[in-house]
Amino acid sequence: MENSNNNKKWGFKANPDFNTTSDITIRGILMMLLSKLNKSDTRPVIPLGHGDPSAFPCFRTTQVAEDAIVDSLRSAKFNGYCTTVGIPSARSAVAEYLSLDLPNKLSPDDVFLTIGCAQAIQTMLTVLASPKANILLPKPGFPYYEAYAQSCNLEVRHFDLLPEKDWEVDLDAVEALADENTVAMVIINPGNPCGNVFTYQHLQKVAETAKKLGILVISDEVYDHLAFGKNPFVPMGVFGSVTPVVTLGSISKRWIVPGWRLGWLVVNDSNGILKEHGIIDCIAGYLNISPDPPTFIQGAIPDILGKTKDDFFVKIVSIIKEAANTCYEGIKDVPGVICPSKPEGSMFVMVKLDISVFEDIKDDVDFCVKLANEESVIILPGIGVGLKNWLRVTFAIEPSALEEGIKRLKAFCEKHSKKT
Amino acid sequence: MENSNNNKKWGFKANPDFNTTSDITIRGILMMLLSKLNKSDTRPVIPLGHGDPSAFPCFRTTQVAEDAIVDSLRSAKFNGYCTTVGIPSARSAVAEYLSLDLPNKLSPDDVFLTIGCAQAIQTMLTVLASPKANILLPKPGFPYYEAYAQSCNLEVRHFDLLPEKDWEVDLDAVEALADENTVAMVIINPGNPCGNVFTYQHLQKVAETAKKLGILVISDEVYDHLAFGKNPFVPMGVFGSVTPVVTLGSISKRWIVPGWRLGWLVVNDSNGILKEHGIIDCIAGYLNISPDPPTFIQGAIPDILGKTKDDFFVKIVSIIKEAANTCYEGIKDVPGVICPSKPEGSMFVMVKLDISVFEDIKDDVDFCVKLANEESVIILPGIGVGLKNWLRVTFAIEPSALEEGIKRLKAFCEKHSKKT
Repeated sequence: MENSNNNKKWGFKANPDFNTTSDITIRGILMMLLSKLNKSDTRPVIPLGHGDPSAFPCFRTTQVAEDAIVDSLRSAKFNGYCTTVGIPSARSAVAEYLSLDLPNKLSPDDVFLTIGCAQAIQTMLTVLASPKANILLPKPGFPYYEAYAQSCNLEVRHFDLLPEKDWEVDLDAVEALADENTVAMVIINPGNPCGNVFTYQHLQKVAETAKKLGILVISDEVYDHLAFGKNPFVPMGVFGSVTPVVTLGSISKRWIVPGWRLGWLVVNDSNGILKEHGIIDCIAGYLNISPDPPTFIQGAIPDILGKTKDDFFVKIVSIIKEAANTCYEGIKDVPGVICPSKPEGSMFVMVKLDISVFEDIKDDVDFCVKLANEESVIILPGIGVGLKNWLRVTFAIEPSALEEGIKRLKAFCEKHSKKT
Repeated sequence: MENSNNNKKWGFKANPDFNTTSDITIRGILMMLLSKLNKSDTRPVIPLGHGDPSAFPCFRTTQVAEDAIVDSLRSAKFNGYCTTVGIPSARSAVAEYLSLDLPNKLSPDDVFLTIGCAQAIQTMLTVLASPKANILLPKPGFPYYEAYAQSCNLEVRHFDLLPEKDWEVDLDAVEALADENTVAMVIINPGNPCGNVFTYQHLQKVAETAKKLGILVISDEVYDHLAFGKNPFVPMGVFGSVTPVVTLGSISKRWIVPGWRLGWLVVNDSNGILKEHGIIDCIAGYLNISPDPPTFIQGAIPDILGKTKDDFFVKIVSIIKEAANTCYEGIKDVPGVICPSKPEGSMFVMVKLDISVFEDIKDDVDFCVKLANEESVIILPGIGVGLKNWLRVTFAIEPSALEEGIKRLKAFCEKHSKKT
C-alpha cells in the first residue's frame, strides 16, 4: 500500500508513562500465559490465575442481586448522569452496610462510589501523589498499586509480609522505610495474594505504627468477609480514631460479580484529620473529572446490600473454605512446591517453589509458561505479586476443576523433577 | 471534641492538581447553580443546563436497549472481569455500527470500549500528554477537555468557532496556533455547545489542515446522528485516510442513557500512522490500568446497536428538532438575548447576552445565579464553555417544560431590563 505520509513528520508521540503497564499487571501476565496454551490440548483450561470465579455455576451470584439490577433498570429512574461521588441512596446503603461491623456509624458523606475497587485505588494514589511523596506497599502485594503509582509519579517503597508469621506486616520494616515524605501504607485484608486474615491485635499495631509515623492507612478490603479460618474479618475502620483509615472495597468478591464494577472508597477518620488536610476535597475533585459507575447499578445497591440473605454468603464461604482445604492438602503432595501457611481468607494462597528440585525449570515465570503449555493450567508467577520463585494459586474455582488442576500440577512437577 | 492529634504532624497532603476541578466542569457549575435555588418557590425546576433528557418520559430509551441489558445480565455470562479494551463481541458490534457511515470497514481492533465518552476523552488526552505537548481545543467547547488536560499537564491552546459562519472552525487560527509540539486538534460534531453540524466540505478542510500540521484530529461525536437541519451528520472518520482521526462516542445521547456509561474510542487511520507512532499501544497500556465498563453492559451492546429500530431514533430526533425550533423562536422575543444561529444538531444552542440591556446584571454568571434563584430555571453561563456573557441553553427537555422555561426566562429578562 502506498503511504503518502511516509515522509511526513507527525507531531504526536505516546506518553512514555503508559507503554509498559501490561508487563506489570496481573491481567498483562495472565494474557501472556494464555498465549502460551497449547491449542491441540483438548482438555479444559484450568484457571488458577485470577480471582474471578464468576464463570462457575456454583459461584453464580444471588438472584437478589440480579433482581435488584433489573428493577433499578426497569424503573427508568437511573438512566441519567449521577452526581459525581455517587447517588445518595447508594452512599447511604454502603454507609449502613459497613457500619454493621464498626463501633461507630459512618455517614453517607464518608462514602465515595467508584468503578470497582480499582478506581478506588486509583483515586487514593492520585490524591496522595504530591511532589516527593512516597507510599509504603506490601510485598507480596497487588501489582495494580505499583502500576498506578508509577503512572502518577508516586514513589513506592516495599515492606515485607512475613510468611513465618502468617503473613503479618513487618512493622519494623515499615518504621525503617518511612520518612517525612511518606503519606500512607497499604494493607490488603483478607490478604491478596497470601490468603491470610489479620488479627484484631495486629491491625491495632498497624494503626499505632501509622499514627506514630503520621501516615494514613489504606485498607484494601475487597475480600471482606471471605474469612474461614481462626481469625474473623475485622475492618481496619475499627481503628479510624487512632489514625486516619481509608477503606477500599466493592461488591465484586463477596457477591462474585467483579464484572459489575461497583466499588467504594470510605473514610474512617473520626478526628476529621483528612478533611482538615484537604484530602476529602481532593478526592471529590478527582472524582469530579473521573468516570462514574453506571447510575442504574448504583440504584441497585440498596437492594443488593440490604436484601441479600445470609445463606448466600454462607454457601459461598463454605465452598471457598473447602476449596482452600483441597488446595492446601493437595499441594502437600506436589514435589518442589511448599505452602508455608494454610489459607484462611480471600481466594488465594502463596506457595514457594524449590527450583533446585526441578531439572529444567529456570524460575517461576518459566514454571508457569511451561505449565500453561504442557498442562493447560494457568497459575500466576510470584514475580507478578513481587515474590520471585513463588506462585499465587487461586483456589476459588469449581471444586472438580480445582482437583483436576492440582492433579495436573502434580504431574507437571513430577515430570520436571530431577531424576535421582 | 477533643482531638488528640491536634499537635501532630501528618505526612500527607492533597495533590494540588485536583483541588479546583469542580470550578471548571459543567457539573461543578450546575451544582453551584442548584445551590442558589429558592426553596420556597413551589414551581418545578426547569433544567436547561445539561444534556441529559433521560428523566423525561418522552425521552425514555427504547425497550430494545433495556431488554438487551436484562438478557445480558440474566445470562450470567457477563458477571466476570473483561479483557482490558472491551469484550470482542461488543468491539465487533461497534465496528460494524460505525462502519455503516464510513467508506471503509472498521476492524474490531480499531475499537476500544470506555466508560462513557468521558473516559475516551481522558484516555486520548493522557496518551498524548508527552512532555511539552500541546493540544488545540475549540472555544466555546466542552470544559471537561480543559479540566482533564490540566490534570495531566497537557498544554491547551484555543481556536475560535465562528458564530457568523455557523460555528465553523477558524482554521487560520488553528494554523497560527500550532507549533512543533502540537499533537492534536479537537472538534465536537454535532456541536456542543453550539448546536451546529459541520458540512462535509468543512470537515475535509479540517482534515487537510491537520495533515499539513502533522497532527491528529480527535472528533467527539457523542451527539452523532442528532442532526435535524440542512447538514447531514458526517463522521470525521470519513477522512481517516487524509490524517489520523480518533473518534469518540457513546450510546449516551442517541439512546438517551448517559447513566449507562458505555462509550468508545475508535481509530480511523487507514495509513496506520498511529500504530507506527506507538499511540495504539499506549491507548491499550493506559486502558490496562484504567477501570472498565461493566461487562454485562458490554454484553448488551450487540443487541442495543443491532436491534434498535429506526422509529425510535426518528421519534427522538423529531422531538429534539421541534424543541430546537421552540427554543429558537421563543428566544427571539426575549430582551437582551441574541441567538446568532439556529441550532441544527446536538441538544444545545449558544445565545449571546447583551448585558447593556439589563439594569442589574453584571455578567453571565450573575445572570444564571439570579435566574436560578428567582425563576428556578437552570441555564449554563457561557463562561463554563469558554465564552463570557453567553449562555448555553439545552432545549432537549420535555416540550411543555421547555415552553415554561422560556416563558420564565422572558419574564426574568423583562424584569431586569433597564426601564426607558
